[in-house]
Amino acid sequence: MIDFDAVFAAYEALHAIKHTFGTRGWFPGTSGNVSMRLSSDPPTMMISTSGKDKTVRTASDFLIVRDGMPIGTTHTPSAETAIHEAIYACTDSNAVAHIHTAATTMVSLYDAPHGCTTFAAYEMIKALGIWDPHACVRLPITPNDADVREIAHRLPSVIDDRVPGILLRGHGLYAWGKTIDACKRHVEALESLCTYRLMELRLGGNSLTDPVV
Amino acid sequence: MIDFDAVFAAYEALHAIKHTFGTRGWFPGTSGNVSMRLSSDPPTMMISTSGKDKTVRTASDFLIVRDGMPIGTTHTPSAETAIHEAIYACTDSNAVAHIHTAATTMVSLYDAPHGCTTFAAYEMIKALGIWDPHACVRLPITPNDADVREIAHRLPSVIDDRVPGILLRGHGLYAWGKTIDACKRHVEALESLCTYRLMELRLGGNSLTDPVV
Amino acid sequence: MIDFDAVFAAYEALHAIKHTFGTRGWFPGTSGNVSMRLSSDPPTMMISTSGKDKTVRTASDFLIVRDGMPIGTTHTPSAETAIHEAIYACTDSNAVAHIHTAATTMVSLYDAPHGCTTFAAYEMIKALGIWDPHACVRLPITPNDADVREIAHRLPSVIDDRVPGILLRGHGLYAWGKTIDACKRHVEALESLCTYRLMELRLGGNSLTDPVV
Amino acid sequence: MIDFDAVFAAYEALHAIKHTFGTRGWFPGTSGNVSMRLSSDPPTMMISTSGKDKTVRTASDFLIVRDGMPIGTTHTPSAETAIHEAIYACTDSNAVAHIHTAATTMVSLYDAPHGCTTFAAYEMIKALGIWDPHACVRLPITPNDADVREIAHRLPSVIDDRVPGILLRGHGLYAWGKTIDACKRHVEALESLCTYRLMELRLGGNSLTDPVV
Repeated sequence: MIDFDAVFAAYEALHAIKHTFGTRGWFPGTSGNVSMRLSSDPPTMMISTSGKDKTVRTASDFLIVRDGMPIGTTHTPSAETAIHEAIYACTDSNAVAHIHTAATTMVSLYDAPHGCTTFAAYEMIKALGIWDPHACVRLPITPNDADVREIAHRLPSVIDDRVPGILLRGHGLYAWGKTIDACKRHVEALESLCTYRLMELRLGGNSLTDPVV
Repeated sequence: MIDFDAVFAAYEALHAIKHTFGTRGWFPGTSGNVSMRLSSDPPTMMISTSGKDKTVRTASDFLIVRDGMPIGTTHTPSAETAIHEAIYACTDSNAVAHIHTAATTMVSLYDAPHGCTTFAAYEMIKALGIWDPHACVRLPITPNDADVREIAHRLPSVIDDRVPGILLRGHGLYAWGKTIDACKRHVEALESLCTYRLMELRLGGNSLTDPVV
Repeated sequence: MIDFDAVFAAYEALHAIKHTFGTRGWFPGTSGNVSMRLSSDPPTMMISTSGKDKTVRTASDFLIVRDGMPIGTTHTPSAETAIHEAIYACTDSNAVAHIHTAATTMVSLYDAPHGCTTFAAYEMIKALGIWDPHACVRLPITPNDADVREIAHRLPSVIDDRVPGILLRGHGLYAWGKTIDACKRHVEALESLCTYRLMELRLGGNSLTDPVV
Repeated sequence: MIDFDAVFAAYEALHAIKHTFGTRGWFPGTSGNVSMRLSSDPPTMMISTSGKDKTVRTASDFLIVRDGMPIGTTHTPSAETAIHEAIYACTDSNAVAHIHTAATTMVSLYDAPHGCTTFAAYEMIKALGIWDPHACVRLPITPNDADVREIAHRLPSVIDDRVPGILLRGHGLYAWGKTIDACKRHVEALESLCTYRLMELRLGGNSLTDPVV
């Protein structure tokens, strides 16, 4: 039997985060997607429908995918559903969001040669659940690929268990959390940290190598 | 007989995109304009009225232009109506929008000597309907001119069929699509890509010539 | 007899522009002010009350000043009322607005040694009512002064009749127009042009001296 | 007896400032906090609850802390309550706010070697209640610390009585005022001044050492 209480709760929570991030312009050009895990066995999630304008609310903005197949819908799930599935399979997260901001996109390009971007000395690191004041957080950057399954296949070996997010090169940020609130907190914290990092690049400083910063 | 269903549908769709872009500050100083094609024979469109503040909604924000003449109205169409007509004549688009953001304006100036600005390695390129992951997209830049008909005359030879937009030097972005939704997606994608390009210019990199980026 | 129709019309128009600019963060820290001329003889205007938070609407946000004195109110007019009076006395404007954005403030400082900031090659210049495509628009920059009357005294000799605005050094932009709509259009156009100018400064270019730009 | 009028007045005032700053994205990732002093003996304040999303309004967003202990609540006060207590103990302020914007964070890092960031030549300085036109305002920057009590202990010796705010290195801005309106004005003014300072850093100028600026 379907747990409609859980379905409607996820539906409202996903609309809320879509609205908040959409209003900020974090889903330009119908980009980006958000999902919540409904069950692990069989793997089931609610995820955004493909190609919808995320600044508008409709009754077909989200659909349910079970075992990789959309169920009870004539709509098509986000093209990046396989990435959400891979994140749920290799983490204990229950919510995933993907945004395309200028800061996350540019950092994903400019720090790609290092395989990660690194944050240090920022209080905002605590919002990731990392409390060590001397923490040097490495957010992995993995190459983009036209074949989403290729990215999904690679994720388990690239994700760092201590860091609830990853950058795809030239593509933006994925972040996740045990709850939709934790997911939202991690997205906002990593977006802020990438904004700081972009400013470091403009100012010629680097928190890793420049002891003054 | 006028198809009032189509008229009211276009009227509402144009108000919606005007409101969304206007709220973002993409039409400063009454600049910018949006239109939808109502028919091709005779060429007929609904387009924004000249000189209106686009953050306010009134009953005279849009009017109908047939064969280049406003019909059934005492208001004046946008001074750039001829550019919209030229785009409808040489593409299969049914909606056109023109915005003046800082990113599109600055890129249109700084990359003008190349005759285009070029985007590569960005996932956002897919929002233009270009799926080749190695695509190197050239957005044409054409000189501005006090005589709008001169610009309109030049457009067919400057527009690249594969790219749903063009920059006017010092003037901003025109973009279009087969539907108003596609037009909006193309505007947002090109605005994001110009924002990335402006950051490349600030950071000293160039996606075309710098193999690291 | 007071023309209450004109009073209420100005009251609503001033609330509207205050709300729009306030929402954009253009009046930080209770800074900025807006006014409309009610009559020229005796000189009478409606202007924002001193020190009010411009993101909140109250019944005491505006008051009437005649011959330099607030009338029928226990509230205090903006500390910069004398600047508005001087602008009304030496131009044919009927509305004046003053904003403190980062772009106008920084340009007013960095271009102060030239006595003006200069805009060329931007379509946005037309929103100032200047239609010459080769126009090179000089927006005057005048020193700030703790004594507002000193600034007011200096304005007639500094204002350029062809340009509906002025920068105070380290202080921001004043702009005006024959109507509140023209004033708003001029504020937004000059704010955009200062944003472009700030980007020119960051990118090392200068529209006056660099023929490529 | 509890003064419920004062409690409800503080509750509404705190919700208003939380909403305004939250909408601007000044509390990313549940960061930041705001409080109002309810009495000095015993020391009692209303302060934001720990870890709440500040873009959402709930009935448990604020709680009362007396003598360092939350009273009449099952919720946990902000982890930085001790900093608010220290500010109330050593100033005559009645409202305190803490924001995490990119400008305040970057300035707190890049100017940390000087122990302060310095503002001069900006009209916005007046919004701090400093009327000397030649004022050179030094906003102190103090090191961050995982132990909030350590920061709180240090504040009395670091705060400058003439400046209603302080930067924590890599952490953002605290500002305060005698009223919630004054606190808000000081937060906005210092945020603007830090934005100007960040632009000075990008443009290579420094208001202290460069006489042109």
